Amino acid sequence: MASIIERRTIRKYKKEDIPADKLEAMLYQASRAATMGNMQLYSVVITRSEEMKEKLSPLHFNQPMVKGAPVVLTFCADFNRFTKWCDLRNANAGYDNFLSFVNAASDTLLYVQAFCSLAEAAGYGTCYLGTTLYNPKGIIDVLQLPRLTFPIATITLGVPDEQPEQPDRLPHLAYIHEETYADYSSNQLDIIYYFKEQLQENMKFVELNNKENLAQVFTDCRYTKKDNEAMSAGMLDALKQQGFL
Amino acid sequence: MASIIERRTIRKYKKEDIPADKLEAMLYQASRAATMGNMQLYSVVITRSEEMKEKLSPLHFNQPMVKGAPVVLTFCADFNRFTKWCDLRNANAGYDNFLSFVNAASDTLLYVQAFCSLAEAAGYGTCYLGTTLYNPKGIIDVLQLPRLTFPIATITLGVPDEQPEQPDRLPHLAYIHEETYADYSSNQLDIIYYFKEQLQENMKFVELNNKENLAQVFTDCRYTKKDNEAMSAGMLDALKQQGFL
Repeated sequence: MASIIERRTIRKYKKEDIPADKLEAMLYQASRAATMGNMQLYSVVITRSEEMKEKLSPLHFNQPMVKGAPVVLTFCADFNRFTKWCDLRNANAGYDNFLSFVNAASDTLLYVQAFCSLAEAAGYGTCYLGTTLYNPKGIIDVLQLPRLTFPIATITLGVPDEQPEQPDRLPHLAYIHEETYADYSSNQLDIIYYFKEQLQENMKFVELNNKENLAQVFTDCRYTKKDNEAMSAGMLDALKQQGFL
Repeated sequence: MASIIERRTIRKYKKEDIPADKLEAMLYQASRAATMGNMQLYSVVITRSEEMKEKLSPLHFNQPMVKGAPVVLTFCADFNRFTKWCDLRNANAGYDNFLSFVNAASDTLLYVQAFCSLAEAAGYGTCYLGTTLYNPKGIIDVLQLPRLTFPIATITLGVPDEQPEQPDRLPHLAYIHEETYADYSSNQLDIIYYFKEQLQENMKFVELNNKENLAQVFTDCRYTKKDNEAMSAGMLDALKQQGFL
């Protein structure tokens, strides 16, 4: 499991392609992850063509990984396949609701992480694009995702052409609770975030953005209330459109 | 990565305990999974006491793994810690919305799967309890989860005391799409679900439940429209209560 412990996000890839059989083998092996009632409530859309990358790129805010990676994978929560099977068997499917969305999204994310672990162990690099949730309607249109499917995560994949430093992580006691959740005192928060706040690169962000501290870089520049609220509305709309709300 | 490929759910555990330092090491190592903006939007509540297992057990429909495992882990989406840090730094946190819930839930599930892969590679067995989402309010109460946290997944963990067969999985072409989503024809569905429908144990389920086919076992017995709709309402309520909607 060294590859999990040594993991880092890879954003630059060699021109080298990924053989279809290798990719398919990993996509199959990852299906060993836990899945609700063994329903496998996910699908993966593989993007290799320049034309499709061109269309996906702006939906991911033109992050260069989309066009720079040989393969882009969009992992979708999928109750369409299961529901269509039920319809075909004269069974009364009831998966057009919010719980079913969360169940399918859970299946999908466990599957994504199992896939990434396998791909990284095989020497590939991955980058997880959180932007998938920012404009789901655009991705639904481009990938022609039907009702009862929803794009959850995008992974760019390729042979690494960089070896960046591992980023910091919080000390584990920051997120472990014994028996019940012990809420955080100001003193504890100071300790938990101390290392992150003192990092050279983070202090530079604060200065560049003309902020008082790192927290304000997050709230005022990177993940603002205004953006989050607008994108929440967009996501709820998309969930309705796809039949989950 | 043999442990991912060979994975099976383990529901019976030896009496053997899991040393705290070993558990903590794995919980730290798993944090190498991708996380949004390096915010680590999760917490884990460790349950070891009989008293707390007693309280959690009915919320998981008395599945015997909860009381039978030395350790029960409840993984929670957590924007509470980050928001409290922002408050402390006079930064205007805007994470009391739906997108932030989905972002935190995504972080949590990637972390869960990375943890399970590490634990299984170390020889432990895990069982993923989907029931966490069925009665979130009960779990929130028992574990005293504050606003802007939400229970997403429960894992029971222990030294395996069984070696069950690996369950079937769909052929990978069932969930892989090239460039765009190719919706399923009746013929394709027949092929995709053929193996599952012919399995001895599944045919027995159909007979036992007095149904015409396996799909009806899912829709009429295991995951019914009525239950899903009631639990969807409960989950949306709980999201409001926790400040995410």
